[in-house]
Amino acid sequence: MKISIINGPNLNLTGKREPDIYGTKSLDNYLQLLATAYPDVEFTFFQSNIEGSIVDEIQRAGFDADGIVINAGAYSHYSLAIADALRAVPAPAVEVHLSNVYCREPERHHSAIAPACKGVIAGFGLDSYRLAIEALDSMHNA
Amino acid sequence: MKISIINGPNLNLTGKREPDIYGTKSLDNYLQLLATAYPDVEFTFFQSNIEGSIVDEIQRAGFDADGIVINAGAYSHYSLAIADALRAVPAPAVEVHLSNVYCREPERHHSAIAPACKGVIAGFGLDSYRLAIEALDSMHNA
Amino acid sequence: MKISIINGPNLNLTGKREPDIYGTKSLDNYLQLLATAYPDVEFTFFQSNIEGSIVDEIQRAGFDADGIVINAGAYSHYSLAIADALRAVPAPAVEVHLSNVYCREPERHHSAIAPACKGVIAGFGLDSYRLAIEALDSMHNA
Amino acid sequence: MKISIINGPNLNLTGKREPDIYGTKSLDNYLQLLATAYPDVEFTFFQSNIEGSIVDEIQRAGFDADGIVINAGAYSHYSLAIADALRAVPAPAVEVHLSNVYCREPERHHSAIAPACKGVIAGFGLDSYRLAIEALDSMHNA
Amino acid sequence: MKISIINGPNLNLTGKREPDIYGTKSLDNYLQLLATAYPDVEFTFFQSNIEGSIVDEIQRAGFDADGIVINAGAYSHYSLAIADALRAVPAPAVEVHLSNVYCREPERHHSAIAPACKGVIAGFGLDSYRLAIEALDSMHNA
Amino acid sequence: MKISIINGPNLNLTGKREPDIYGTKSLDNYLQLLATAYPDVEFTFFQSNIEGSIVDEIQRAGFDADGIVINAGAYSHYSLAIADALRAVPAPAVEVHLSNVYCREPERHHSAIAPACKGVIAGFGLDSYRLAIEALDSMHNA
Amino acid sequence: MKISIINGPNLNLTGKREPDIYGTKSLDNYLQLLATAYPDVEFTFFQSNIEGSIVDEIQRAGFDADGIVINAGAYSHYSLAIADALRAVPAPAVEVHLSNVYCREPERHHSAIAPACKGVIAGFGLDSYRLAIEALDSMHNA
Amino acid sequence: MKISIINGPNLNLTGKREPDIYGTKSLDNYLQLLATAYPDVEFTFFQSNIEGSIVDEIQRAGFDADGIVINAGAYSHYSLAIADALRAVPAPAVEVHLSNVYCREPERHHSAIAPACKGVIAGFGLDSYRLAIEALDSMHNA
Amino acid sequence: MKISIINGPNLNLTGKREPDIYGTKSLDNYLQLLATAYPDVEFTFFQSNIEGSIVDEIQRAGFDADGIVINAGAYSHYSLAIADALRAVPAPAVEVHLSNVYCREPERHHSAIAPACKGVIAGFGLDSYRLAIEALDSMHNA
Amino acid sequence: MKISIINGPNLNLTGKREPDIYGTKSLDNYLQLLATAYPDVEFTFFQSNIEGSIVDEIQRAGFDADGIVINAGAYSHYSLAIADALRAVPAPAVEVHLSNVYCREPERHHSAIAPACKGVIAGFGLDSYRLAIEALDSMHNA
Amino acid sequence: MKISIINGPNLNLTGKREPDIYGTKSLDNYLQLLATAYPDVEFTFFQSNIEGSIVDEIQRAGFDADGIVINAGAYSHYSLAIADALRAVPAPAVEVHLSNVYCREPERHHSAIAPACKGVIAGFGLDSYRLAIEALDSMHNA
Amino acid sequence: MKISIINGPNLNLTGKREPDIYGTKSLDNYLQLLATAYPDVEFTFFQSNIEGSIVDEIQRAGFDADGIVINAGAYSHYSLAIADALRAVPAPAVEVHLSNVYCREPERHHSAIAPACKGVIAGFGLDSYRLAIEALDSMHNA
Repeated sequence: MKISIINGPNLNLTGKREPDIYGTKSLDNYLQLLATAYPDVEFTFFQSNIEGSIVDEIQRAGFDADGIVINAGAYSHYSLAIADALRAVPAPAVEVHLSNVYCREPERHHSAIAPACKGVIAGFGLDSYRLAIEALDSMHNA
Repeated sequence: MKISIINGPNLNLTGKREPDIYGTKSLDNYLQLLATAYPDVEFTFFQSNIEGSIVDEIQRAGFDADGIVINAGAYSHYSLAIADALRAVPAPAVEVHLSNVYCREPERHHSAIAPACKGVIAGFGLDSYRLAIEALDSMHNA
Repeated sequence: MKISIINGPNLNLTGKREPDIYGTKSLDNYLQLLATAYPDVEFTFFQSNIEGSIVDEIQRAGFDADGIVINAGAYSHYSLAIADALRAVPAPAVEVHLSNVYCREPERHHSAIAPACKGVIAGFGLDSYRLAIEALDSMHNA
Repeated sequence: MKISIINGPNLNLTGKREPDIYGTKSLDNYLQLLATAYPDVEFTFFQSNIEGSIVDEIQRAGFDADGIVINAGAYSHYSLAIADALRAVPAPAVEVHLSNVYCREPERHHSAIAPACKGVIAGFGLDSYRLAIEALDSMHNA
Repeated sequence: MKISIINGPNLNLTGKREPDIYGTKSLDNYLQLLATAYPDVEFTFFQSNIEGSIVDEIQRAGFDADGIVINAGAYSHYSLAIADALRAVPAPAVEVHLSNVYCREPERHHSAIAPACKGVIAGFGLDSYRLAIEALDSMHNA
Repeated sequence: MKISIINGPNLNLTGKREPDIYGTKSLDNYLQLLATAYPDVEFTFFQSNIEGSIVDEIQRAGFDADGIVINAGAYSHYSLAIADALRAVPAPAVEVHLSNVYCREPERHHSAIAPACKGVIAGFGLDSYRLAIEALDSMHNA
Repeated sequence: MKISIINGPNLNLTGKREPDIYGTKSLDNYLQLLATAYPDVEFTFFQSNIEGSIVDEIQRAGFDADGIVINAGAYSHYSLAIADALRAVPAPAVEVHLSNVYCREPERHHSAIAPACKGVIAGFGLDSYRLAIEALDSMHNA
Repeated sequence: MKISIINGPNLNLTGKREPDIYGTKSLDNYLQLLATAYPDVEFTFFQSNIEGSIVDEIQRAGFDADGIVINAGAYSHYSLAIADALRAVPAPAVEVHLSNVYCREPERHHSAIAPACKGVIAGFGLDSYRLAIEALDSMHNA
Repeated sequence: MKISIINGPNLNLTGKREPDIYGTKSLDNYLQLLATAYPDVEFTFFQSNIEGSIVDEIQRAGFDADGIVINAGAYSHYSLAIADALRAVPAPAVEVHLSNVYCREPERHHSAIAPACKGVIAGFGLDSYRLAIEALDSMHNA
Repeated sequence: MKISIINGPNLNLTGKREPDIYGTKSLDNYLQLLATAYPDVEFTFFQSNIEGSIVDEIQRAGFDADGIVINAGAYSHYSLAIADALRAVPAPAVEVHLSNVYCREPERHHSAIAPACKGVIAGFGLDSYRLAIEALDSMHNA
Repeated sequence: MKISIINGPNLNLTGKREPDIYGTKSLDNYLQLLATAYPDVEFTFFQSNIEGSIVDEIQRAGFDADGIVINAGAYSHYSLAIADALRAVPAPAVEVHLSNVYCREPERHHSAIAPACKGVIAGFGLDSYRLAIEALDSMHNA
Repeated sequence: MKISIINGPNLNLTGKREPDIYGTKSLDNYLQLLATAYPDVEFTFFQSNIEGSIVDEIQRAGFDADGIVINAGAYSHYSLAIADALRAVPAPAVEVHLSNVYCREPERHHSAIAPACKGVIAGFGLDSYRLAIEALDSMHNA
């Protein structure tokens, strides 16, 4: 099974950035551990601060992978372009967030991309990624 | 580890009700299988169509269990009373939904109870429950 | 033909309560007369002030009766749970109101349950119930 | 008893127009049958696509008939002018709709004329007209 | 000086219609008296319940008269078409209302046509018309 | 007949201030001419930039004069305190504005004090004051 | 004098629940002390987490007691059903809150039941109940 | 190919009316030239200021022509009745505007009729009509 | 104990003003009686129609008294300046209203100053002041 | 004549992506055919998924071409940056859309860039591009 | 160069009031130091808690000074009267705030007076005043 | 002291673009002069039309510089991603605008990034940059 994990703006700073909200662990390290934990899954990792580059990557991976895990960061809340890209490709996507966005500012309660995903997992810190892989795995085997 | 699974209105009809949205499997059967799959977890199951009875159960289980999985059904979208109950008890809660509520009518995009939960998992059908157990298990061991 | 008439909060006080709005006749007496006037219809009557008990009754009657007449009282305006129950069962439902809710406070102009019903009849006092029976009867024979 | 049945824009196309929503029967034929079914009622029928002509007819009929059945079509949702006309005349009016407008686009959920009517009957197809006559008859005899 | 007085829907019923709001005097009689009181002004009077016929009359009178007094009744609150007509012609217009629309329902607080008029006079009963003539007369002599 | 003319903030600058909107004539001079034109009316004039001083003056004049002409300037749009004062006294009030406020910024379309006045006259420059006196005179003689 | 004190969802946890907001004293103990402090008042105490059971109790107590003190907890903010019950019975009611709800989340600023009560007392912790009794006592003796 | 060009309120004044917005050319002359430029198209032209007469014409032309070009003027922004008529007939419609309505007042940004048309062409002055004919011609030949 | 009672606009007319809403008793007389009833409390009384003078008084009394009872009248609903003053001083404040503001016009449902007070007491006529003194007394002795 | 055709996110997938909405033809092929059909026009084609790269291209082409045809895809609905770029350059722009965006989700009804364009053409599939060229050609020759 | 510094409600308490937000330094002392630091500028200082007195001072200083620095405190957010005064005088004004109002409650995000000022400086504590003087000095010398 | 000046979309066109709003001076030239005027400050300059590239630069400069001056152009009004980047880095930021954004279209009144900055300076043309440097300098020395 091939899974593409796509991360949006500022997620490259996870561990350094606002640790009260996002924790102190590095996302890169975590994803390496995750890859080890799921040896049967073929992962690709991508991060960009540029909305359109995320669209590019979805267009590439979405015809290649069996599933997409997407944490579009702040773009989650307004990027209709990312939502359109997710709708345009066959791979199912799962939206994840480190924090429980529903406890934060009102503009983070709305997701522009959720309607283009199979489901949403938010609030479990880095564990949100593992849960998304579990979810895609279940779908794949269903 | 003790986990309380609390279900709200109309979830007792899962499998019979609007199968395009909620699927054709019975929730009861699924939860029995789940209990078998996690032999180390001590489960309690509760379902009620009555908002206040769900509050009662959260008050009971919330001081007893190590975690709550709550699918408050339609009450998710307006029950401040259930949110208050979740805030009043020490057990961490995970909100789950069978369907991707963000693809449905606007009134289902808002969750009154999400800010009182650790996180939210929505859109994976009955598998949402398993993912919530995984999430609580991670928190418990963290 | 079997018709279930389900009444929500405070309708048990009809005749005693705010007579300028709701009239001075008792709902119970009226429904008895109605049963007499339609001898070929098998009626069940239910009233509860508890939202979830109304959901319970819809789940019971909705698989048994040929039609439901529902006056959900104040719950009409916010109970997505009752709407979900009506959508979950095969029996067609007609929403009724004693008063013309569109002449009253703005929060009574919106109905959460109307989209889950076949139609709405409002403003004719107790006669709204008779018109609903006529409507269900027409549908049944159509 | 004299009843005036007033129909608004596009209702002359009923039977030909969007049959999924409005059905396949002609309104004219139906109203003729209705007149036959209520021999003691003296009916007048009126249809116009012109908002102001409907106001004219309400001004004429409203001082002459014992009741008005009005299906103002799309004007129902924004014509304060028709509402004012209904308020200006002594005959009681009943608003009817073929479709359950509460299941359709949001702009059809609001009625500008409902507060000027005795009550509202919506969602029963052509049978909505018969129910309105029943309602006016009850009022007349009350 | 030539003044065109244009009245909209239901104003032909003034005196008969909702006397608590609109008073008991006939508009026709009042306007005849007004014409007598201003012998130097050449008046034309027009009333229609049809929005488009009011547009027609504005188009006609607006190139002929020195001023327009318009009481567009309920259309005042939503007719962008009448506003466009008033903007399209050279004659200055004064919007009048019998009642103080700001004390009534919220939808009557907004005027679609006021931005296309020189000014607004509301709340003085039939005397609103006389004040509008005074205002046009002042402008004419300024 | 006694009439109190009350002016609010910045009206003391009329003639000097934003002449495109408010004209180039001094309000003081105009009001002196007005007093000459209506020798039978006993006038009092008051101007203040302080909201509460306007309330004070309404409380004083409102039990003494037969009518109030009020141009509350910017306070018109938000002073519930002035509205309350107008409601608290027996003298009828007429709200006036120099400019057609409905053509200006949206916050000037709403009047907090209009519901506490008999009527509103706006858009006729200084002539708005004369029209208000005419209106009060008619009411007084009615 | 007979006073019914009715408490809504989660108030049974007062003292244990979110002590920063609700304090550390038990409501039960406090109410016992209050009963001792007002020996001439005959109290009934009721608490339920179920909205409809609160309606039931209002219907019972509202025809029996001389006054109702109601803390409907979270239901205060959306229960039109409780508001309708309060309007349906003769006993005057006082709405109380432990916390100053106007300092908290926006959804707690609105009260659905306040328009059905004589008055509102909020923000004084458990002392809010004593003040409500004082208020009812004054009304009773007025 | 048969094309019906339907124009709404105030378009008969094009060329005379607000030339900064609508230009100085007459619509009638332009349409005659257009007819000459497309000799293979059989045109009908219609203009009315009356909303309901436009509905009538759509009902007539919509079963006869191969396409409708509609400039509903101000009605475009609120006439659900015209939208319903367009939906009721088989001929495809193209909505046109002389001005770029999206640069003007907010109430002109919304079109009530666009969802009932194939497409929208706005902002090209009289050339908008030619582009609409081109568009209908393409559809016809597709 | 020192308590400062501060009253805002139009409260000096209490007893004369809109007696259906505010009652027929004079506020001055009532406050004198209150002072007699609480001989151990040192009172200061202040009333002004001027928003900024109320700010001045709060700044003076707020460093001197042990508590403030404030009825800011209409300013309650929009004076962020008074709210800021209350936040700037150490004395705790209680907001009072004679009428149940939640039963009145929507603009009176919002309080700008409530978040700057300890609590709110509304709807008990002049008795609201006594209850506020009771509340401050409890706080003082707590 | 030089025309720059600029396409935004996901338009590179046209033909592969959601064919029910966007059709099955490739945009690239279509544009090649278009270039052949207008041999006198010098075309440049640009597509990017990156909002800022579209701004870059508008800045380049906008000082060079005689007109711009822009389909900004999802960015049309929120990119004030693209609107600012269009306003910053002398070349006139025409906004195009393949689908009738007014029939789709509400967020697609608003265009952030329309006020910065000469006009809008939407709903004609790939033919929208040809119509835009026709429109620019007319402007160029006017 | 003459500069008038005008301060609104509660700014006289700066240093004593909510030090987390407004700092611990006295505004008076700071302004004295500022006057020393800019010996070539002739300063006038004014502070009032009364909205209308601020209007008075703007009317006085606005025809005399070369620039105005205004911190209208809470009035910034709703005083259209102060905005009108600023528009009525020739001196350019700069709006300042001690705190970053955009980080605080939503009602402080809107400025009623900003559109009447040259620019806005917010969030730099007392240094905001110095920056405003720098800004006025640049304008004066430009 | 190290200061990073970051400019967003279309600011590279300053001097050429809409000179009524943005002036006729080139931003590049101005910034060179500024660097000369502050020889003790080590400047870096960055401009990009790409939202994500601005995020990249904030991430780079924010750990290196002592302060950031950011003019995010149109992105200021909707880029939560830039706001998140500013929150993620230790360097304090000052938001600047050339124009007084509060005088322009409503969508420019809101800043998504202001809550992530120390303060805001808007409306002083290119001088806004100098004022921001002054502000950062004060903070640095405080």
